[in-house]
Amino acid sequence: MKLDGSAPGRLVKAPENFLGTPDIRQVMAGRRDFLRRAFVVAGAAGATAAVATRVQAATAVAIGEGEPAVLELPAHTKGLGQPVVTDGYGKPSQYEANVQRRQSPGLTQSNQSSVSFAPLQSMFGIVTPNGLHFERHHQGWWDVDPTRHRLMVNGSDPALLRRPQVFTMDALMRLPSVSRFHFIECGANTGMEWGNVAVPTCQYTHGMLSCSEFTGVPLRVVLEMCGVDPRKGRYVLAEGADGSSMTRTIPMELVENGDVLLAYGQNGEMLRPENGYPLRLVVPGVQGVSWVKYLRRIEVGDKPYGTKDEVLHYIDLMPDGRHRQYTSIQECKSVITTPSGGQVLLDKGFYSISGLAWSGRGKVKRVDVSVDGGRNWRTARLESPVMSRCLTRFNLDWVWDGKPALVQSRAMDETGYVQPTYRQLRAVRGSRSIYHNNAVQTWLVQESGEVKNVQLS
Amino acid sequence: MKLDGSAPGRLVKAPENFLGTPDIRQVMAGRRDFLRRAFVVAGAAGATAAVATRVQAATAVAIGEGEPAVLELPAHTKGLGQPVVTDGYGKPSQYEANVQRRQSPGLTQSNQSSVSFAPLQSMFGIVTPNGLHFERHHQGWWDVDPTRHRLMVNGSDPALLRRPQVFTMDALMRLPSVSRFHFIECGANTGMEWGNVAVPTCQYTHGMLSCSEFTGVPLRVVLEMCGVDPRKGRYVLAEGADGSSMTRTIPMELVENGDVLLAYGQNGEMLRPENGYPLRLVVPGVQGVSWVKYLRRIEVGDKPYGTKDEVLHYIDLMPDGRHRQYTSIQECKSVITTPSGGQVLLDKGFYSISGLAWSGRGKVKRVDVSVDGGRNWRTARLESPVMSRCLTRFNLDWVWDGKPALVQSRAMDETGYVQPTYRQLRAVRGSRSIYHNNAVQTWLVQESGEVKNVQLS
Repeated sequence: MKLDGSAPGRLVKAPENFLGTPDIRQVMAGRRDFLRRAFVVAGAAGATAAVATRVQAATAVAIGEGEPAVLELPAHTKGLGQPVVTDGYGKPSQYEANVQRRQSPGLTQSNQSSVSFAPLQSMFGIVTPNGLHFERHHQGWWDVDPTRHRLMVNGSDPALLRRPQVFTMDALMRLPSVSRFHFIECGANTGMEWGNVAVPTCQYTHGMLSCSEFTGVPLRVVLEMCGVDPRKGRYVLAEGADGSSMTRTIPMELVENGDVLLAYGQNGEMLRPENGYPLRLVVPGVQGVSWVKYLRRIEVGDKPYGTKDEVLHYIDLMPDGRHRQYTSIQECKSVITTPSGGQVLLDKGFYSISGLAWSGRGKVKRVDVSVDGGRNWRTARLESPVMSRCLTRFNLDWVWDGKPALVQSRAMDETGYVQPTYRQLRAVRGSRSIYHNNAVQTWLVQESGEVKNVQLS
Repeated sequence: MKLDGSAPGRLVKAPENFLGTPDIRQVMAGRRDFLRRAFVVAGAAGATAAVATRVQAATAVAIGEGEPAVLELPAHTKGLGQPVVTDGYGKPSQYEANVQRRQSPGLTQSNQSSVSFAPLQSMFGIVTPNGLHFERHHQGWWDVDPTRHRLMVNGSDPALLRRPQVFTMDALMRLPSVSRFHFIECGANTGMEWGNVAVPTCQYTHGMLSCSEFTGVPLRVVLEMCGVDPRKGRYVLAEGADGSSMTRTIPMELVENGDVLLAYGQNGEMLRPENGYPLRLVVPGVQGVSWVKYLRRIEVGDKPYGTKDEVLHYIDLMPDGRHRQYTSIQECKSVITTPSGGQVLLDKGFYSISGLAWSGRGKVKRVDVSVDGGRNWRTARLESPVMSRCLTRFNLDWVWDGKPALVQSRAMDETGYVQPTYRQLRAVRGSRSIYHNNAVQTWLVQESGEVKNVQLS
């Protein structure tokens, strides 16, 4: 597979001028005592109670001797800067230009039916900025005129839904709404890794994953307005307006509890065009293909629809040659984003191991981290809030001794389900699937500090 | 005051083609039964148990007869769309171009020392997209090179901090980090409204307010690494690197509990340049001016510093002519964003009243909403999660009867503090202040459907 850039994270990669040069240290030597004290190389010599000992060992934490950037007065300390709202909608720093979604040319046959991956290795917390949200298109994306867009709600039979209706966006946006944080993961995420290591970075192994605060109308509200009979109508068909005719069956049990949303808002603003503007279905915990974009129709039926995108695609090929359908819920999974493939550790010493965990069945309960390929495990700190079917950020203190390390995370959700190893997953699923790979990811930190993607047998 | 655009929200403003024309209805009449049934004008005739009665009354919920947009096959159903990652960093739909930060020319004497307001009336949930985050600059913004940026940590006296140090961004980003959701509000938010109604929309009355997931190192960790003596060093001075020499005193009690962060991450990516890239102080619950941008120095001292930005600016002028200093914590406050000034209700019937509540002292406990100027109140639904010193989204079902309505929200926090009316606030504070106006906001919905900013005496 070709990649158009390895996009390593910036956290642990040394810039050119990471430490001051000896010459500059000489220049500094004559300055007054206060500044010399400020420039000690002692590094970390204490921290919070929780990490004091470990940070103490990390004497190489990078605090430069002779810091030119402190004594120099850069332009921004001496003059007027840029005015407000030179652009009414802001954009990232020029120094972050490498943090972007990336395509994998050769992974798909066209750029319209393709994927872009989110740069997980450069991201923080759980929110995915809309500008970095992964993309998966089946026939390219469109910027649909919201004043022309309609949602039609009907039944496959009049007995299942008595008052079929058509909604404008304005009509939908007057209805009772909710706002909820959820992850979305493509069922094919990590799909290239079934047989063996295929790609170098976590952007490509796990980057079909994002997380947002979605705002919209519970589908249940609209179905009840339309006179649904939920005893007979046990399934819902969702249909998108783009040329791919994306259609997916949603079990009514997911709709009944109010969790499935007709969403128009994402992270405080309207959905982005590449993610279904102006309306997409949000189906928490379920693989992304069911979150139908450019949503134009909801039909209530009494049996699964067996559409092309659920009987031919998004199925699990099993070792005996049969395939499983409707395995839609994303099982518990996690990945370490720092350190991860393509990054380079500067030197031995203290690092904060950080990653993401999630489960389509509820909340993440615990994440354990190993640095020796799974022989020993320590439990990571979970950042709050821990929300159901949402990303959870975990962090763990680590002092790297400079020797090769096999770094892994293993998540457990509130149902008690534990993320499997590749050995465990393949014992059930074989290695010829595309979808629903939630195995433990291993990163090898080499003595050089370079991190690479490996699989343990 | 001049405004460069009223920026009304899109939620309740009718587009030109909101309902089908009679001509199109005629065309539709001959279509087959199923489609005619789908186009009934009956509107909402049932909903969830909670809202069933009220939605039932809202027969005018806009469901057009003869929906051309359903029968027509637009271009996006018939062809290939745009490929993935035409731009590696995405942007909003062309149809959302009016949703942007806006400046208020005339409010400030320069565009470098100025403000842009977030378009609250067009936003959802609690997350502020980084591209819409309000701006407040004291000398313009800069895109600072992170490889040149340094944070110096020292004491005003060696006894207060034994090991002064200088940190590179790489050194900081290796340390233990946390991720937390917090609001940030400028102390001058709603400041123009002290005397009387000054501006028409909630973008201008309340738009110096935003909310993000911040990631960074607790300041406490770094101070402990540097050998702070927190018994003697009861204050911290934070200094920014831009030309305004922004300096603010932070009480050590806010630092000790781990809540004050040296933040580099905001909503999953690095801070934006206009919001302090690459490093800003996060001081949860405290007015925005203390969240020092381009943070270059932290000094530990034994008394408040009395800097220009805390003894001359950001002070509260009291009725007796004296002023209060160090009133930094943002008290409990709320605002209804829909319906709000500049918006137009389409017709009588069902609407979802929606707004934001927050408190610098903890969690929002309850929000009550009145549609009759404070005579009667109903308790709104709070969206979860409700987090400490974070925005909370509230929603309430409402059927507008077409008569004038005075719409208000009143928030209460977990300390029991209740947001005051203007009458209550002015009884203590008078009307000549600039800062810390947290009074109840009133919007008048006129019979025409137009909404305007009013103050009740």
